[in-house]
Amino acid sequence: MAQASGCIFCRIVAGEIPSDMVYQDPEVIAIRDIRPQAPLHVLVLPRTHLVSLAEVDAAQAPLLGRMLLVVKQVAEEAGVTQGGYRVITNIGRDSGQEVPHLHWHVLGGRPLGPLVSRGL
Amino acid sequence: MAQASGCIFCRIVAGEIPSDMVYQDPEVIAIRDIRPQAPLHVLVLPRTHLVSLAEVDAAQAPLLGRMLLVVKQVAEEAGVTQGGYRVITNIGRDSGQEVPHLHWHVLGGRPLGPLVSRGL
Repeated sequence: MAQASGCIFCRIVAGEIPSDMVYQDPEVIAIRDIRPQAPLHVLVLPRTHLVSLAEVDAAQAPLLGRMLLVVKQVAEEAGVTQGGYRVITNIGRDSGQEVPHLHWHVLGGRPLGPLVSRGL
Repeated sequence: MAQASGCIFCRIVAGEIPSDMVYQDPEVIAIRDIRPQAPLHVLVLPRTHLVSLAEVDAAQAPLLGRMLLVVKQVAEEAGVTQGGYRVITNIGRDSGQEVPHLHWHVLGGRPLGPLVSRGL
């Protein structure tokens, strides 16, 4: 399992930093965001270190698909499927990606507003 | 290929409604959003009718993975990979999902602001 030294998510995966983990399997974990932006705000990420979606290749497509099944399961278990939820991944500077380890934000439990802010 | 009568994206897939298509393969298409929220705003969707991520199952995981490779390719071809981009899918009411046919928004070309609006 590729790990990056100094990566906070790799350290969470390794158990070096505590987290509020809501799901885990041999490839994927899901943790609560420490600064939640909605009643449900969980991050779904691969145990292996991938910087972002911009760095994946075809060999990782099955992992990407399985991560999204975990997203779906997390939402179901949180009870937001009927009300609705939003799934987001950020890539690089313009997106505001904060941790350079691929992760999906799963947000729900309130109306989430516009897709993105209208402009800056 | 499962189609839903009255679904605007199924009608685009079928060629019944014009679109500005930037990518297509036997399973997936990518079209420009008609109300772009950023300089790059493309929608990546499966040709087959799936309502949202909440309705997929394990059999569709490979398709989900391949869709994300298309997302990555669309971003690369648009030249936003270095600057960054955001990838979003909405599921149901609280997210504001507008078309009940699974699609990924690919947004880039400007700073995209907060992950979600802070509250309503």
